[in-house]
Amino acid sequence: MTHQAAIALGQSLRVLAESVDDGAALVTPDVVVGDYRSLADLRSFAVGCEVVTFDHEHVPNEHVAALAAAGISVQPSAEALRFAQDKVLMRQRLAAAGIPCPRWTDLATADPVSTLAEFGAAVGWPLVLKATRGGYDGKGVWVVASLDAAREVMAHGVALLAEQLVPIERELAAVVARSPFGQGAAWPVVETVQQDGICVEVIAPAPDLGADLADAAQGLALQIAADLGVTGVLAVELFQTVDGTLLVNELAMRPHNSGHWTIEGARTSQFEQHLRAVLDYPLGATTMTAPVVVMANLLGGPDDVMPKAIDERMHHCMARWPDVKIHLYGKGFRPGRKVGHVTALGSDLAEVRARAQAAADYLANGDTA
Amino acid sequence: MTHQAAIALGQSLRVLAESVDDGAALVTPDVVVGDYRSLADLRSFAVGCEVVTFDHEHVPNEHVAALAAAGISVQPSAEALRFAQDKVLMRQRLAAAGIPCPRWTDLATADPVSTLAEFGAAVGWPLVLKATRGGYDGKGVWVVASLDAAREVMAHGVALLAEQLVPIERELAAVVARSPFGQGAAWPVVETVQQDGICVEVIAPAPDLGADLADAAQGLALQIAADLGVTGVLAVELFQTVDGTLLVNELAMRPHNSGHWTIEGARTSQFEQHLRAVLDYPLGATTMTAPVVVMANLLGGPDDVMPKAIDERMHHCMARWPDVKIHLYGKGFRPGRKVGHVTALGSDLAEVRARAQAAADYLANGDTA
Repeated sequence: MTHQAAIALGQSLRVLAESVDDGAALVTPDVVVGDYRSLADLRSFAVGCEVVTFDHEHVPNEHVAALAAAGISVQPSAEALRFAQDKVLMRQRLAAAGIPCPRWTDLATADPVSTLAEFGAAVGWPLVLKATRGGYDGKGVWVVASLDAAREVMAHGVALLAEQLVPIERELAAVVARSPFGQGAAWPVVETVQQDGICVEVIAPAPDLGADLADAAQGLALQIAADLGVTGVLAVELFQTVDGTLLVNELAMRPHNSGHWTIEGARTSQFEQHLRAVLDYPLGATTMTAPVVVMANLLGGPDDVMPKAIDERMHHCMARWPDVKIHLYGKGFRPGRKVGHVTALGSDLAEVRARAQAAADYLANGDTA
Repeated sequence: MTHQAAIALGQSLRVLAESVDDGAALVTPDVVVGDYRSLADLRSFAVGCEVVTFDHEHVPNEHVAALAAAGISVQPSAEALRFAQDKVLMRQRLAAAGIPCPRWTDLATADPVSTLAEFGAAVGWPLVLKATRGGYDGKGVWVVASLDAAREVMAHGVALLAEQLVPIERELAAVVARSPFGQGAAWPVVETVQQDGICVEVIAPAPDLGADLADAAQGLALQIAADLGVTGVLAVELFQTVDGTLLVNELAMRPHNSGHWTIEGARTSQFEQHLRAVLDYPLGATTMTAPVVVMANLLGGPDDVMPKAIDERMHHCMARWPDVKIHLYGKGFRPGRKVGHVTALGSDLAEVRARAQAAADYLANGDTA
């Protein structure tokens, strides 16, 4: 999707791919197969690049810093990126900046069980354990009802932090972009609907949010982008609590699933905006192209039917919903994996949601009714 | 631009390019360098392609037919394509179908000068000479005021037809798509503004056209698509005469400059629609995303300044017009060549036109005011 935006801007995109079968490698001409964990691979990849950026947060921070030290423009910088890579650093940094977050504690202590027992006594059980590094799409997140249940997770040996399980109304995302020059731009705040820890639907704008909360969410995201020196797209995942306050859940410093709706739903997509931002071009307009835009993710099905069925399902889906936009990622259809998404636009919230969900359901599952 | 659409649909696009520097070759991974005039090159290119289609009309018709005879799905077919390749065949075919065209005559006669003198006496001078085959962007079109002037053109030795120089109000384009299954879809009719025979601006929808003429233009284009068995996108260039009738000027059987506005301006772009059509998928919705959409072409400047200046000009253009969408084609900035376009959307016709033109002018010429 970034390449689609790069084509229009006349930019040449070089991709570091894990294999030639990577979705991005299938559609771009300048592909280097290599390991993003190898500094040697990163160094040779970066030769000749005007700017290096990311579509995930897993490139080791010290490698990112090493590239920058070698004179390569890396956006976002290692300094900013570490707050999307390490949740303890992120919580510390946001707390220092006065940004509201769930109550939390680092379990990297001399006696983590006692630390957690004390924290649980203070915030109540169940609570949430999170891997400090490397989690995504619900991986690396455990809701535990008791200290005994928590011990099992702690036995995995990964670095953890604990967070209060906040009673929430729903989840929101404030997606913004910031350029090295310092310009910021915010898209309308969206509602993200999760199932089993995976985002299945994004509704733009978040229904019935109210101008005050919407402004507050955009303001938080722009403040975080500026405070942390983020460049490129920043997605701030937020909890809207039952008492109507906003808490920061997670940060992603890259085009993010909660911004896929912008491809058709906003004058400037998050992919174009990310390129503009990391190249330090002025940012594009973030106004919506329709009153309501809904994106529904396509998740790989429980069997191997989808690869064989997808073509026929696309026929039926296009015939039934000629205005729904389909995006496939060229990935293997692994069960539960995000393999594509659909976007529907319109003016009636219930109708647009139903259309997006029906199209996504048909593509993922066929006619199972 | 077709590759951008192919990415979303999960389709793999293979490109036959004249050189590795071709705009399309720069952005697609599966590039075969070859000569579209060579049947051997076309045959080896087509191996493994589910469908073969075109972004210009210059592939020899007999080669297109030979590919089809070898069992390859070629869309549009040689049968349809010849009407976009040979203007005499096109005029004959449209006349037979009762489609209104300017008065014309074929000059491939035993005594072309006498034929032309007779035709000129009937329709009046000046009149238009056109190369029967191979013209585009004003090339292969000559307005001649007298038989003497015509003789000079005829001395070139290319096959010609003559057409009445129709007193026109303006030029329009009706862009439609048709699938092998027979489904048709039409975008709103646009006005195309020409300078020196090159389209510089496209306004969607055509201002003050009136529902009757708009319906008639769309109907003509859909009828032509069906009558001629066109598959994929068909652009019908039309004259709106001073007495308010419509005459067919030219046909293009491929995504066309008069449809570039659909990338942001319609729910389904002409590039996505062309892929849907040639793959025989159901066609997408053609509704507009804004009340007024204006596309302005970027023409290469008169010197070699543009390649050096384009980056800085893009900065200024993006800063001044954050909602204008820029498309660069990765072509050399040859003087007068279409090297990109910009699209502006809005609701006030004069404002949107001014914005698109100012942005295009700035990108092409810099701050010359």
